Amino acid sequence: MQTVAPIVPGFRSAGVRCGIKQRGLDLALIASDVPASVAGVFTRSTVVGAPVEVSRSVVRSGRARAIVANSGISNVALGARGLRDARAMTALVAKSLGCAADEVLVASTGVIGTPLPMARVREGVPRVAARLRARGLPDAARAIMTTDTVPKWGAVQLRIQDRPVTIAGVAKGSGMIEPNLATMFSFLITDAAVSPPLLRRLLRRACDASFNRLSIDGEGSTSDTVLLLANGRAGNRVLRNEAGRPEQDFAEALGQLCGELTRKLARDGEGATKLVRVRVAGAHTRADAETAVRRIGNSVLVKTALFGMDANWGRILQTVGAGRVRIDLERAEVRLGGVAVYRNGAPATAAARRRAGRALRADEVEVAIDLGAGRHEAELWTCDLSYDYVRINAEYHT
Amino acid sequence: MQTVAPIVPGFRSAGVRCGIKQRGLDLALIASDVPASVAGVFTRSTVVGAPVEVSRSVVRSGRARAIVANSGISNVALGARGLRDARAMTALVAKSLGCAADEVLVASTGVIGTPLPMARVREGVPRVAARLRARGLPDAARAIMTTDTVPKWGAVQLRIQDRPVTIAGVAKGSGMIEPNLATMFSFLITDAAVSPPLLRRLLRRACDASFNRLSIDGEGSTSDTVLLLANGRAGNRVLRNEAGRPEQDFAEALGQLCGELTRKLARDGEGATKLVRVRVAGAHTRADAETAVRRIGNSVLVKTALFGMDANWGRILQTVGAGRVRIDLERAEVRLGGVAVYRNGAPATAAARRRAGRALRADEVEVAIDLGAGRHEAELWTCDLSYDYVRINAEYHT
Repeated sequence: MQTVAPIVPGFRSAGVRCGIKQRGLDLALIASDVPASVAGVFTRSTVVGAPVEVSRSVVRSGRARAIVANSGISNVALGARGLRDARAMTALVAKSLGCAADEVLVASTGVIGTPLPMARVREGVPRVAARLRARGLPDAARAIMTTDTVPKWGAVQLRIQDRPVTIAGVAKGSGMIEPNLATMFSFLITDAAVSPPLLRRLLRRACDASFNRLSIDGEGSTSDTVLLLANGRAGNRVLRNEAGRPEQDFAEALGQLCGELTRKLARDGEGATKLVRVRVAGAHTRADAETAVRRIGNSVLVKTALFGMDANWGRILQTVGAGRVRIDLERAEVRLGGVAVYRNGAPATAAARRRAGRALRADEVEVAIDLGAGRHEAELWTCDLSYDYVRINAEYHT
Repeated sequence: MQTVAPIVPGFRSAGVRCGIKQRGLDLALIASDVPASVAGVFTRSTVVGAPVEVSRSVVRSGRARAIVANSGISNVALGARGLRDARAMTALVAKSLGCAADEVLVASTGVIGTPLPMARVREGVPRVAARLRARGLPDAARAIMTTDTVPKWGAVQLRIQDRPVTIAGVAKGSGMIEPNLATMFSFLITDAAVSPPLLRRLLRRACDASFNRLSIDGEGSTSDTVLLLANGRAGNRVLRNEAGRPEQDFAEALGQLCGELTRKLARDGEGATKLVRVRVAGAHTRADAETAVRRIGNSVLVKTALFGMDANWGRILQTVGAGRVRIDLERAEVRLGGVAVYRNGAPATAAARRRAGRALRADEVEVAIDLGAGRHEAELWTCDLSYDYVRINAEYHT
């Protein structure tokens, strides 16, 4: 398994500007030359965009040819009009590619409650289709950015039955926003041949261990969408059996790619100055581990302290306690940047705290707590909370 | 029932500087001339300060004479030493007042993990006791401040059995912090005669409708403490029967005072520029109403939008949806500053949104949503999230 260029046999991608956002690329297309197996994981919100409804129904069929996505407007909370526009986007792509509209997945991110400028979309779709190319994935990554500061993509390669197989993908920020929204997208493609049921299970599992372990500000969006297309062009025997060795290799590579994209998302959280890995150990129950890791990862007190490079173990104990998580203070240990700052019922020395403060200057830091109450663990990726987070979210007026 | 000066017959109070904080008053004492009924409501955190443990045991006895409180150091996470120091504080007060140590309640707020400078406390307690006076409550309010920008007190008067009865109280900020902590205190005193069991029920109910309807940043502290002393000096027949008219009048006055203190706390949330009342209606279940009101009140996206005076209904729908709350978008309505900005499945006009934006310039604003899914309601007091919140919480280094 190795990192490679984001090129997957039988897939072509492109990104163009069609004028939905104020500036920059805003319309992405990723297409497979042949019908592909598809799996999807969507927001669990009770308020979802029309594109989520449309894509969910494509995913249920198990097969798809393309993903069309725009940034700038999320097509949420527009009722029947939203649904009509989302379906029109898939029909336009189908016409350009010569496939059926119900083989086209759609995703939109941006402002809630503003209708898509469909005249621009109608003009843009044939143009983005005309630009499809094997090396187009980075442009697609650019075209789905909202408040992201860098485009995010990645690719890994492995061998299955002695054939090279590639998995590549793009992602956009869970940094919340633009200006109403908080959307995380990842579109993944592979030339492996995988049965739709197995693809669904593997994607769900990979998401649980990566994108679902990411929290920028505790929000979740109306449009969060992860899609995985597998077009079988690698020519391997179709992967079906979860327990098989090739299947496990594929799952591992998929997990690696999703983990890499997750860390890129966390690092680019709105206004973030550092990537933060939160680890909880010694929890009495799995639920306690989960509560603790999410309370720490979403605590604005902890996150402002990290921005200030303050080795503030007190805030970590406080937010865990407020979550009513079982903790044995006499056995608990808090480590910041690898330095124990609270241990055996007492704070570490001032020197240790200074050492931890210095460790927190790194652009990637670890916040770890052992609750001393059991054997359960959890981890989460997040970022710090800076002045820029407030600026981005307060000063954007629509 | 009317607002009056914070003077309650038979109670004397004081605040002095004893050198725990860097500057300002930091040691408060409130004492009753005679033993009083006592009730208390404490943090539900699994990490609590030693003073909380000590005060809980006094409250269980139902009777108390005094409350001693300091700011600057919270006496949390110090094991046996913390407990010894908290008990020493109560013993020092008992000696100064000529009562038993187990009649003295204690509360500390400030840094976690640093021991109290007991030599200073030993010197300070007799001094604060010597300064006790009927008009001393505002000084006590000053002495419990941490990042609060103004001292907070209040008083109401009512008549019970034709006798004047006063309820007065002080409070300090739930603004979270200083620098590890996030503590809310309120100490309430009255000259009404109330049985301890009724006092407990009335305090619990008043807290549920006031302090527990307050959220600055979704955190909760290791030291949150609300205490109510009733010394009976008004000479009324002892209130015992929840259904009685005098009892109901007393409950109403207590509720009014707690509500007033709660709004003062919200308005003084760290870095807050405005007081925000969040109201949810039309929820399918009571749990949905509660989830929705807390998600909105704790959403950093909503709170930064309010700081930016952005009439951003999309963020409100988004955070409610992310909480998996049942909502009927076709019937839902969002009102900001009294102006409907989303209604009947569609955004309001740009003019309405501008009108709402202007309404959000007020220093007290209402955020309201009708979920269109049922009959349950909830409300919450909070504040906006500004640059100053980040500054206060990032730049405080210990």
